[in-house]
Amino acid sequence: MAPWRSPLARALHLNRSLPYARYLQLATVRLDGRPANRTVVFRGFLDRSDRLKFVSDTRSEKFAQIEAQPWAEACWYFPKTREQFRITGTLKAIASDDPDPELQQVRTSSWRELSDSARLQFAWAHPGKPRAADDTFNPPAPSAEVPLPHFCLLLLEPMQVDRLELRGDPQNRTMYTWLEGDRTWSTQAVNP
Amino acid sequence: MAPWRSPLARALHLNRSLPYARYLQLATVRLDGRPANRTVVFRGFLDRSDRLKFVSDTRSEKFAQIEAQPWAEACWYFPKTREQFRITGTLKAIASDDPDPELQQVRTSSWRELSDSARLQFAWAHPGKPRAADDTFNPPAPSAEVPLPHFCLLLLEPMQVDRLELRGDPQNRTMYTWLEGDRTWSTQAVNP
Repeated sequence: MAPWRSPLARALHLNRSLPYARYLQLATVRLDGRPANRTVVFRGFLDRSDRLKFVSDTRSEKFAQIEAQPWAEACWYFPKTREQFRITGTLKAIASDDPDPELQQVRTSSWRELSDSARLQFAWAHPGKPRAADDTFNPPAPSAEVPLPHFCLLLLEPMQVDRLELRGDPQNRTMYTWLEGDRTWSTQAVNP
Repeated sequence: MAPWRSPLARALHLNRSLPYARYLQLATVRLDGRPANRTVVFRGFLDRSDRLKFVSDTRSEKFAQIEAQPWAEACWYFPKTREQFRITGTLKAIASDDPDPELQQVRTSSWRELSDSARLQFAWAHPGKPRAADDTFNPPAPSAEVPLPHFCLLLLEPMQVDRLELRGDPQNRTMYTWLEGDRTWSTQAVNP
């Protein structure tokens, strides 16, 4: 496991009373080269990996953005422990046509783990388009077993993690960098 | 005032018991075209304008990023009211050499409004460099009146604001867009 996993697990544990401590902000780059930024929910790690799971709708803008520019940066602030993790890496979207059977299975499990109301949102009208009639937001409940076609799984593969602890005096900041050549992580204390 | 100012003021008021409701995540684009994302503190609006104020250090990476690509997107999540504002616009950095006397005055006021400990950070060793000796983090307290040279003010000029209310059933989402030709804002309900 990567060396930043243990401080991140600790932050998740110490902030567990706040449901929104599992929300983080995910920045991508738009097709016109401008940044985009939105709140997403952390859905755990992919088994036996350091890849973070999120879910998304293939009709959302970020789906097209990722295809053109897979690099992303997640900014995750934990209010109780006053620490920030900036996680830089590449995003991969697993949509309904992904040919990898193992990843398709993870996509299906992620669908099953959603709440009924979260699943229902994937049956709503096209996100971001002019507001549709109210009854389009009351579709029949989709199957809890088989994901709707628009549902996709997002995997963020971290390449660098910048951890800042605001509570220290002076503050502590640690930079974890994936060294592709050595297939290992370096850990470096840096100035806050 | 822009039409999104009133719902934003309401969110700030209803979340005022949480100090971190004034924290938001600011995404910019790195010189290599990858996104960057970090937490910043909202320092209010520039007088008689819709521009958001933040403070920064000219030695930080975002300072160089803004020069190359001024477009930014702030993502601001309010936990109590469960609403998100995505604020897209251009960033302008007001550093010590900015020739505009009015903006220099705002830069100085922003410095004066900081806490002692926040001001001290601008006298610390170069952010992001390998960790310096502990005593470099105990410099003499800087003047509370005259900003240190590295201190800069950031102004975000919004061009689009995307407001999402998670509490609605169905959720409400409103897109506010600045129309440069008409010098006015449009307001449009869109699908969440």
